[in-house]
Amino acid sequence: MISKNKLKELAAYRQQRRCDEEAVFVVEGPKMCAEAAASGFNIRVVCATGEWQAAGAECYEVSQAELERLSNFKSPNQVWMLVERRKPLPAADGRLVLALDRIQDPGNMGTIMRTADWYGIRHIVCSRDTVDCYNPKVVQASMGAIFRTRVDYVDLPQWLAACGMTVYGASLQGTPVTERGVGDGGRAVLLIGNESRGISDEAMAQVTHPVLIPNIGGTAESLNASVAAGILIDRLWNS
Amino acid sequence: MISKNKLKELAAYRQQRRCDEEAVFVVEGPKMCAEAAASGFNIRVVCATGEWQAAGAECYEVSQAELERLSNFKSPNQVWMLVERRKPLPAADGRLVLALDRIQDPGNMGTIMRTADWYGIRHIVCSRDTVDCYNPKVVQASMGAIFRTRVDYVDLPQWLAACGMTVYGASLQGTPVTERGVGDGGRAVLLIGNESRGISDEAMAQVTHPVLIPNIGGTAESLNASVAAGILIDRLWNS
Repeated sequence: MISKNKLKELAAYRQQRRCDEEAVFVVEGPKMCAEAAASGFNIRVVCATGEWQAAGAECYEVSQAELERLSNFKSPNQVWMLVERRKPLPAADGRLVLALDRIQDPGNMGTIMRTADWYGIRHIVCSRDTVDCYNPKVVQASMGAIFRTRVDYVDLPQWLAACGMTVYGASLQGTPVTERGVGDGGRAVLLIGNESRGISDEAMAQVTHPVLIPNIGGTAESLNASVAAGILIDRLWNS
Repeated sequence: MISKNKLKELAAYRQQRRCDEEAVFVVEGPKMCAEAAASGFNIRVVCATGEWQAAGAECYEVSQAELERLSNFKSPNQVWMLVERRKPLPAADGRLVLALDRIQDPGNMGTIMRTADWYGIRHIVCSRDTVDCYNPKVVQASMGAIFRTRVDYVDLPQWLAACGMTVYGASLQGTPVTERGVGDGGRAVLLIGNESRGISDEAMAQVTHPVLIPNIGGTAESLNASVAAGILIDRLWNS
């Protein structure tokens, strides 16, 4: 059971600003909430239509209608959690770091995080105008990667200039990423650009190794940003 | 100007069944509508907030509110078209054919069509329970590939058994797709499975070459279906 006042208080977290102010984020559905519970992140509140426990959290049993009032989605599924954003994870020293320049679509951002997780990439650096990684649609599309990935928002051209690594970026003047040996095997950054405008001039100026995915068909204008990111990550990781 | 009756008549095409009955589909936005106009498909009706012409089509100027009544999307953009489905294009003889087994998400289906288009794959074969390629969300996500790709809905296991080609399919027991020479360079089918359940047993029985994308990170449970399709297409095409 949950009181009307409590429900109203929790429903306010549908506003992203409220989540930002308190440094929390919302996680939904049994699969993602199980990942949250196992992640070591502090869980502040759990609301579920059935039985759910989380150590140290306020727990409420709610009706489906009440769950719908809390949820960011049309068809909420069983459980809703309010999770505290952890302090940034220590910079991972993996071989590849992702840099996202102005990615706008939450689905793309989450899907890119999910792909990075698959390849063991633990560090993503974003331009300040990239979509917020705690946006509920990003969290859901990340399929748990949000709990395992350090995401920093920075002045991206400046960060790239100072990072001291090879910087790969997609460019029409690049080397086909399908050529053997295009990656040098050392630590590197892969820069992914905006869905329609690509990489900004300022960030592109920091690219040391332009690469391209050959347009074999010759009819399509572009690839989806998260698909292009997947193909580039796969080629650079395994080259 | 458009009459109230005409608007009501056209708004009925928001129902997929109505589109199926008349073998038409809806295309929206200036970019996709420009592709439709250049595609050779017959355009039956155009509704636009500004000036738009299409040879042989009924054209109406509509207000933004009227466009919203026609549209399948929250924020319709300038133009809406009703396009006749063309008879199936002749079977393309490209090197790779895509086979989709129970893909459910329209965004994934459209994104896979877009990736196929980029790689020059002109033929996609789908199980009968795969999402309809004329679903408005598929059409939009395909970014024009709908006008250049033959899509057949068939009894998939039977089609695979009869096709006489190498059949690649993702499987945990597969060969890493990153190994050189995993593709034999001949004509082949790449089979992509359902977002959460993968390839059905019946279709998997027809896979001659199981392949996998190595899970380097070891923490993510899976890749997004359209990202996995992109990585597999890229590897098989260029192996």
